[in-house]
Amino acid sequence: MRVLVLNGPNLDRLGTREPDVYGRTTYADLVQMCVAEGKELNFEVEVRQTAHEGEMVAWLHEAADHSIPVVLNGAAWTHYSIAIRDACSQLTAPLVEVHISNIHQREEFRHHSVISAIANGVIVGLGVEGYLLALRWLALKGRA
Amino acid sequence: MRVLVLNGPNLDRLGTREPDVYGRTTYADLVQMCVAEGKELNFEVEVRQTAHEGEMVAWLHEAADHSIPVVLNGAAWTHYSIAIRDACSQLTAPLVEVHISNIHQREEFRHHSVISAIANGVIVGLGVEGYLLALRWLALKGRA
Amino acid sequence: MRVLVLNGPNLDRLGTREPDVYGRTTYADLVQMCVAEGKELNFEVEVRQTAHEGEMVAWLHEAADHSIPVVLNGAAWTHYSIAIRDACSQLTAPLVEVHISNIHQREEFRHHSVISAIANGVIVGLGVEGYLLALRWLALKGRA
Amino acid sequence: MRVLVLNGPNLDRLGTREPDVYGRTTYADLVQMCVAEGKELNFEVEVRQTAHEGEMVAWLHEAADHSIPVVLNGAAWTHYSIAIRDACSQLTAPLVEVHISNIHQREEFRHHSVISAIANGVIVGLGVEGYLLALRWLALKGRA
Amino acid sequence: MRVLVLNGPNLDRLGTREPDVYGRTTYADLVQMCVAEGKELNFEVEVRQTAHEGEMVAWLHEAADHSIPVVLNGAAWTHYSIAIRDACSQLTAPLVEVHISNIHQREEFRHHSVISAIANGVIVGLGVEGYLLALRWLALKGRA
Amino acid sequence: MRVLVLNGPNLDRLGTREPDVYGRTTYADLVQMCVAEGKELNFEVEVRQTAHEGEMVAWLHEAADHSIPVVLNGAAWTHYSIAIRDACSQLTAPLVEVHISNIHQREEFRHHSVISAIANGVIVGLGVEGYLLALRWLALKGRA
Amino acid sequence: MRVLVLNGPNLDRLGTREPDVYGRTTYADLVQMCVAEGKELNFEVEVRQTAHEGEMVAWLHEAADHSIPVVLNGAAWTHYSIAIRDACSQLTAPLVEVHISNIHQREEFRHHSVISAIANGVIVGLGVEGYLLALRWLALKGRA
Amino acid sequence: MRVLVLNGPNLDRLGTREPDVYGRTTYADLVQMCVAEGKELNFEVEVRQTAHEGEMVAWLHEAADHSIPVVLNGAAWTHYSIAIRDACSQLTAPLVEVHISNIHQREEFRHHSVISAIANGVIVGLGVEGYLLALRWLALKGRA
Amino acid sequence: MRVLVLNGPNLDRLGTREPDVYGRTTYADLVQMCVAEGKELNFEVEVRQTAHEGEMVAWLHEAADHSIPVVLNGAAWTHYSIAIRDACSQLTAPLVEVHISNIHQREEFRHHSVISAIANGVIVGLGVEGYLLALRWLALKGRA
Amino acid sequence: MRVLVLNGPNLDRLGTREPDVYGRTTYADLVQMCVAEGKELNFEVEVRQTAHEGEMVAWLHEAADHSIPVVLNGAAWTHYSIAIRDACSQLTAPLVEVHISNIHQREEFRHHSVISAIANGVIVGLGVEGYLLALRWLALKGRA
Amino acid sequence: MRVLVLNGPNLDRLGTREPDVYGRTTYADLVQMCVAEGKELNFEVEVRQTAHEGEMVAWLHEAADHSIPVVLNGAAWTHYSIAIRDACSQLTAPLVEVHISNIHQREEFRHHSVISAIANGVIVGLGVEGYLLALRWLALKGRA
Amino acid sequence: MRVLVLNGPNLDRLGTREPDVYGRTTYADLVQMCVAEGKELNFEVEVRQTAHEGEMVAWLHEAADHSIPVVLNGAAWTHYSIAIRDACSQLTAPLVEVHISNIHQREEFRHHSVISAIANGVIVGLGVEGYLLALRWLALKGRA
Repeated sequence: MRVLVLNGPNLDRLGTREPDVYGRTTYADLVQMCVAEGKELNFEVEVRQTAHEGEMVAWLHEAADHSIPVVLNGAAWTHYSIAIRDACSQLTAPLVEVHISNIHQREEFRHHSVISAIANGVIVGLGVEGYLLALRWLALKGRA
Repeated sequence: MRVLVLNGPNLDRLGTREPDVYGRTTYADLVQMCVAEGKELNFEVEVRQTAHEGEMVAWLHEAADHSIPVVLNGAAWTHYSIAIRDACSQLTAPLVEVHISNIHQREEFRHHSVISAIANGVIVGLGVEGYLLALRWLALKGRA
Repeated sequence: MRVLVLNGPNLDRLGTREPDVYGRTTYADLVQMCVAEGKELNFEVEVRQTAHEGEMVAWLHEAADHSIPVVLNGAAWTHYSIAIRDACSQLTAPLVEVHISNIHQREEFRHHSVISAIANGVIVGLGVEGYLLALRWLALKGRA
Repeated sequence: MRVLVLNGPNLDRLGTREPDVYGRTTYADLVQMCVAEGKELNFEVEVRQTAHEGEMVAWLHEAADHSIPVVLNGAAWTHYSIAIRDACSQLTAPLVEVHISNIHQREEFRHHSVISAIANGVIVGLGVEGYLLALRWLALKGRA
Repeated sequence: MRVLVLNGPNLDRLGTREPDVYGRTTYADLVQMCVAEGKELNFEVEVRQTAHEGEMVAWLHEAADHSIPVVLNGAAWTHYSIAIRDACSQLTAPLVEVHISNIHQREEFRHHSVISAIANGVIVGLGVEGYLLALRWLALKGRA
Repeated sequence: MRVLVLNGPNLDRLGTREPDVYGRTTYADLVQMCVAEGKELNFEVEVRQTAHEGEMVAWLHEAADHSIPVVLNGAAWTHYSIAIRDACSQLTAPLVEVHISNIHQREEFRHHSVISAIANGVIVGLGVEGYLLALRWLALKGRA
Repeated sequence: MRVLVLNGPNLDRLGTREPDVYGRTTYADLVQMCVAEGKELNFEVEVRQTAHEGEMVAWLHEAADHSIPVVLNGAAWTHYSIAIRDACSQLTAPLVEVHISNIHQREEFRHHSVISAIANGVIVGLGVEGYLLALRWLALKGRA
Repeated sequence: MRVLVLNGPNLDRLGTREPDVYGRTTYADLVQMCVAEGKELNFEVEVRQTAHEGEMVAWLHEAADHSIPVVLNGAAWTHYSIAIRDACSQLTAPLVEVHISNIHQREEFRHHSVISAIANGVIVGLGVEGYLLALRWLALKGRA
Repeated sequence: MRVLVLNGPNLDRLGTREPDVYGRTTYADLVQMCVAEGKELNFEVEVRQTAHEGEMVAWLHEAADHSIPVVLNGAAWTHYSIAIRDACSQLTAPLVEVHISNIHQREEFRHHSVISAIANGVIVGLGVEGYLLALRWLALKGRA
Repeated sequence: MRVLVLNGPNLDRLGTREPDVYGRTTYADLVQMCVAEGKELNFEVEVRQTAHEGEMVAWLHEAADHSIPVVLNGAAWTHYSIAIRDACSQLTAPLVEVHISNIHQREEFRHHSVISAIANGVIVGLGVEGYLLALRWLALKGRA
Repeated sequence: MRVLVLNGPNLDRLGTREPDVYGRTTYADLVQMCVAEGKELNFEVEVRQTAHEGEMVAWLHEAADHSIPVVLNGAAWTHYSIAIRDACSQLTAPLVEVHISNIHQREEFRHHSVISAIANGVIVGLGVEGYLLALRWLALKGRA
Repeated sequence: MRVLVLNGPNLDRLGTREPDVYGRTTYADLVQMCVAEGKELNFEVEVRQTAHEGEMVAWLHEAADHSIPVVLNGAAWTHYSIAIRDACSQLTAPLVEVHISNIHQREEFRHHSVISAIANGVIVGLGVEGYLLALRWLALKGRA
């Protein structure tokens, strides 16, 4: 069973970017953690990252075409990319939105997500572990 | 290791109240699920529910006094009880906020939580499984 | 046929509290008027009052469990207690919201009720007679 | 004793217009119900309807000149016609505002009435029976 | 030289309507005062009043067609009738907006006029004398 | 097949009113253009104009009663006449809202239409040709 | 009988400052016009100007102490100087607020005056003639 | 002479809760300080604390019944409990609102108090000494 | 004569994406319809789609360089891409904005377009036929 | 030990200005009361008043230069003078903000102080006694 | 060639006031730096500072009268002094607004300048060097 | 020493795009001017432009990786691209934001920059010379 873990702009900088906010786990660590967790849950997890909105839209179309569940950290796009929201609303398998930091403790403009209302659920502020919980939820629900 | 799972007003009606929104799991089921998950994780989980703000405040003081991690579903209080927020901000062990339904898909006034900014993290819309993920996160972090 | 007439904080002070706003009928008078009106309409009317949000929630659960129609004057809670709104939304028999004074002539914050949107209807500013009209409406609709 | 029951635009369509919102009672039924209730209460009830703001203003001036109590369903004008509000504020006999549907459950712009603050009271969402309660209140108060 | 003095809804009630706000001069007095002032200024002043928006629009078209200056007290329409604003914006002779009472001392919704931005000027709160000043200004400017 | 083309206040002034905004086509030209286009499309097009809200409401009731498609330029009413919106919401045949000028390039208060949300579609800023496109759309959809 | 005509910052530049907005009458002309009009009305008119808020406050105290009517053009202070508003609210003789330009046609922040609500009336957009009308009104009211 | 010093939720945690914000004085110290100050001022000071809104309402009713002056620190309730505001508005003896921390330096939602407008006065940010000043003011005014 | 029909993100999914909102016409159908309509109107119509903002900007630059009229459905970008607005404002040939669905009936954030104010006109909610009307308007105006 | 008691515009009018709001104590009385209280507390209290913002700024610089505690009643400036706020933020000794009237019971624009956030504390509505309490607090804290 | 460098309230405290925000350069240093830079650019630079709004207005009038370019740091006035904005709008030579600190990183109320919209340009957050860049720009443009 | 001068969408059109707003300097001129200025200042200046958000993010990562100072004109992205803001916040060398036109004189939505709060400083409205000043500032600070 495949699962896509999709990451938005600047998440490739994980571990180097504002470590006080995002922690010291690197993006490579994150990929490995997700794949490992996937294995344990019997998922084929693929982790991708892009700063090109059009590329993210294409990945979401791919997930929609093959009914693949998505774990999405939209990063900055979370707050303005309606294009990505619209691509998400075409998904037929579950969508879990994840944020590493607690966006409610940060700048006002980070408190609102244009994606949450069309996701199944949202996990915020639980660090990179949030991704693992999202994968686990897909397993719990027997949906992936 | 103890964990408190604290529930606000009307959650005792789980399974009978608006099942389209909250699902058909009853409150008794929820208690059992949390306790069971706790056992697996080697936690002593205690699940409580109240519609008395003062009682919830007292439970949070208890958690603060003994450094007990808290999983909190503030229900309606989420949106206005600064008393509960203030009690939460005294906690020294982790606090995970949980909402069964996706509050971002519901009435505008449910989109804002007065508690999120002082929680470690928030899990929204993943059903009663959200409680289990919260417990699991406490285990993952080796914090409980 | 039973009907619950539920009153929020400070309504026990009726007749002594700001008589220019609320009139000189006392709470005891109100109870008697409602019971008398109920008799005439062939209802068993029970009038209660509390300043404990948790108690009001419990009464509403009781009404929900037994499909009892409710006449509710939420008083101050009208403007912020989502806990009471959520309890109300579980009612299966009709709910009529009553306010003695015309809340639209008072402070800005009294113009909005968090309960109205889930009530069947609202009666505002018609004095204690508003309770009697609410009871009469239950009779008219043959619903109580 | 005379009472005017005044209705704003589109209420002549009652029973045919959005019956899910307004019910299936026709305007003719409404007229008859009000007149009949009036008879029982010993009132001479006159029911009128118009989509011309100027005509409504004239009727309100007539009521002001002869101290006739008014039951007013301003319909759409409720939300913007300050001309009608100003005419209402000249009334010396009581004014009861009535809305058939629960305006608090509908579009945001229907939640606010420019008339409520100068009415004696407001009855919302209790169907065409709201008119009957308004008449009954006039009788209860011995004011009409 | 002709001047139109146009009055909106409820101004025919001058002297009887809320005399604390509008004073005790009657509408007939106002007509006489304006005509008399006009005579002194060598104007043929015509004073009209209506509660029909369409009639007011027609009068403004008449003024536009004959380049007649207008003194306009839009009354309640001041705050919402864009139809009257649009008719006013076709005028080629001057337009002076007049309000008898000081609208800035009254309800919030009376503080804004949709007409002021397209009038030449506005006279507020100077009582019925405001009309006389408006006429005098037309004379001062040699424009009427 | 009949089609009603209904125009609000001041549109009778077309060609003379603010020609920089609305162009130099007169109202008579507009009527002729619509009738001619109708003939080509095999419609019996009737073009009407009024500054009386009550008259417009009556015309919309007429269209509702006979399932006649409507092309509506509400002019100033677009921005505040909920009465006309409510009349429109009774239509069973299609409704196309038309504005000659691009209302999004004009004053802030012209950016919002109270009618758009209940129209089938809206054509803005394409000049008097907008009416012709609306008629053509009715033909394209085979609905008129 | 004395009248004070008080002018705020930059009005000493009249005639040179933005003549498209304020016209070509100079401040010296304005002084002369007011004094001349005063003579005709039998007033002793004194015209002053300052860009020092404290000086304006002192002048208003002087007017309050001697019950002198005031014609005030607060210029920029109109929009923020609560100190001047507070000084104005001590006046016992009438206060007329004057603005040369039509502030409702200018920047948004010029639409609100902190002084209007405590003035007797306001004259806006009628050019320097507005001062003369204000003086004439004081005469009409027999108040100065 | 009796004085009630009433404290809202979490104030029992004084000295342990966020000492950077509230200082290191404990609740027991506060009680003692107030009683001691009372003695010096010849008052019988009673200090109470609760996290139950209904209990606070009852204490305020008690104060109202016996015309006892109140020093109130509503804590979190300050910002939303209209129930407590309504109970306060029944007081006949003076009410002084006290906040230990400077609420204007904290989160936006703490800047507004629903109680201030019906208190005699408010003392903010002066630490636990604020209580002593409130008592002293009661003495100064000879009102307690 | 060339015309560019440019489509934003997710429009390539037409017919599969939310068919209740967008209808069942596929993107391939849309392309064909536009080209066919173009032929009839003697236009060389080129239909393009992209989810890359930079690519859309380049296409608009191309249109600007060769004075090619544009029919633009910005899709999600409509609501936030000022980059595309800025590119549009360089066009010298006409620009018609098209939306398939009635954006005024959808989420609040879809009600505002950052592009409308610099387009010649806007066609909303008339389905894929909206594109054809836009092409026809270009023909009517003899501009393409 | 020196203390500066600084007063903003119009406070020199105390006792004559709106005595219903500010009481009948004159400014001279206030000076005497503060000096007397200072003597009792062993402070050298200097009371000053000005309507010149620049003068107030200079006094605050003086206090900053000599570490003198300040009791400040900014009067009208409270609500807009960021210049005074900025001068206050340079103080090194304590700053207590005082308002004689309860600003929360007055006009909306008086509810917000630009100074409170940088003061140590605020005393509102306790009459001229508020100054005495401020002085006493300086003594209590042993800071002056 | 003369240039005026004008500074608002509290800038005389440069180097002593909040050095973390404004740096350690003193006002005397700033004067010297500007004069030196002026010499290099062949300007006669005069640097002034005041906390009296009326004095600043006079200096701007002086600059307007002699077409002298102005470098203005309005300090606190930036956010509310429309009097200074109005004086600036009379300038005929260029105006460059300078802020030492990055006002966009500070309190919300510092993010908006009432002056920027009428300045030629704005330099923010580049420290005292911002003044030097402003002078250099005047030289680059050959305008001073 | 390297400096990156990065330009957002549509800046490649400089000189052809809205020359009234942006001037007639072409993008090629701008590149040359920056390189030349860099030479004089002993910087190796590289000027780039893109309409692809992902490409701009990559360039900022490059600057972050090599501690290269950045002069950024985000163009349209200034107002919404949080992705670019987030990339900027990773920079360790200085960042100067530049806008050619005075964004405070243009549409409301251009007044706010999502980047300013994390830049060192901002230069607005000084034309293409703004870039040169930014480079000069880097030299002045000895930081590049």
